[in-house]
Amino acid sequence: MLKSIDKINFEKRNGIIPVIVQDIKTKDILMLGYANREALSKTVETGNAYFWSTSHNRLWMKGEESGNIQPVEKILVDCDSDALLYLVDSAKPVCHTGNRSCFHNELAV
Amino acid sequence: MLKSIDKINFEKRNGIIPVIVQDIKTKDILMLGYANREALSKTVETGNAYFWSTSHNRLWMKGEESGNIQPVEKILVDCDSDALLYLVDSAKPVCHTGNRSCFHNELAV
Repeated sequence: MLKSIDKINFEKRNGIIPVIVQDIKTKDILMLGYANREALSKTVETGNAYFWSTSHNRLWMKGEESGNIQPVEKILVDCDSDALLYLVDSAKPVCHTGNRSCFHNELAV
Repeated sequence: MLKSIDKINFEKRNGIIPVIVQDIKTKDILMLGYANREALSKTVETGNAYFWSTSHNRLWMKGEESGNIQPVEKILVDCDSDALLYLVDSAKPVCHTGNRSCFHNELAV
């Protein structure tokens, strides 16, 4: 089913909802970011992954400093419309450590 | 690298951090939930996916009503220790709609 941007429930999470970023080819999970309506709109408009920085309170394009931009091929929405999934097509690192994925640590149990 | 539960930065997100749930075999993303320290501890202790319900403010085991429990094989932590990834081994539906995944809608662009 298709959902329009007007159906996304930003209000439920105080204007900012989580965004999972997944590699469209390998299906690896790359990072977890956040988006407000503006970040999602910019992602749709430009085709590159935009987020809302919760630590710096500003709109932010992935790769704006590193050059590792992440082109978004598809955006999925969850069943209650308060979480997003950006499917990206790139082989560039997403993590500031240089790893492709930010999820490179395992919980010790 | 291994990270202990004491290194998880729950405080940064007011005690509750996002949890991505991914099928360990197909690598499909199944849902986005939330965990506080108690939910993570119960997940580690029991081997089943536990969450903190942000709408009902209570600890919650996935499948407690539906029977569709999700055994967690591995838990990954992101680079700044404020997001989790549960890798689950099950073929049971995760979504209340009966879908395996909650991410079954595409954003209309």
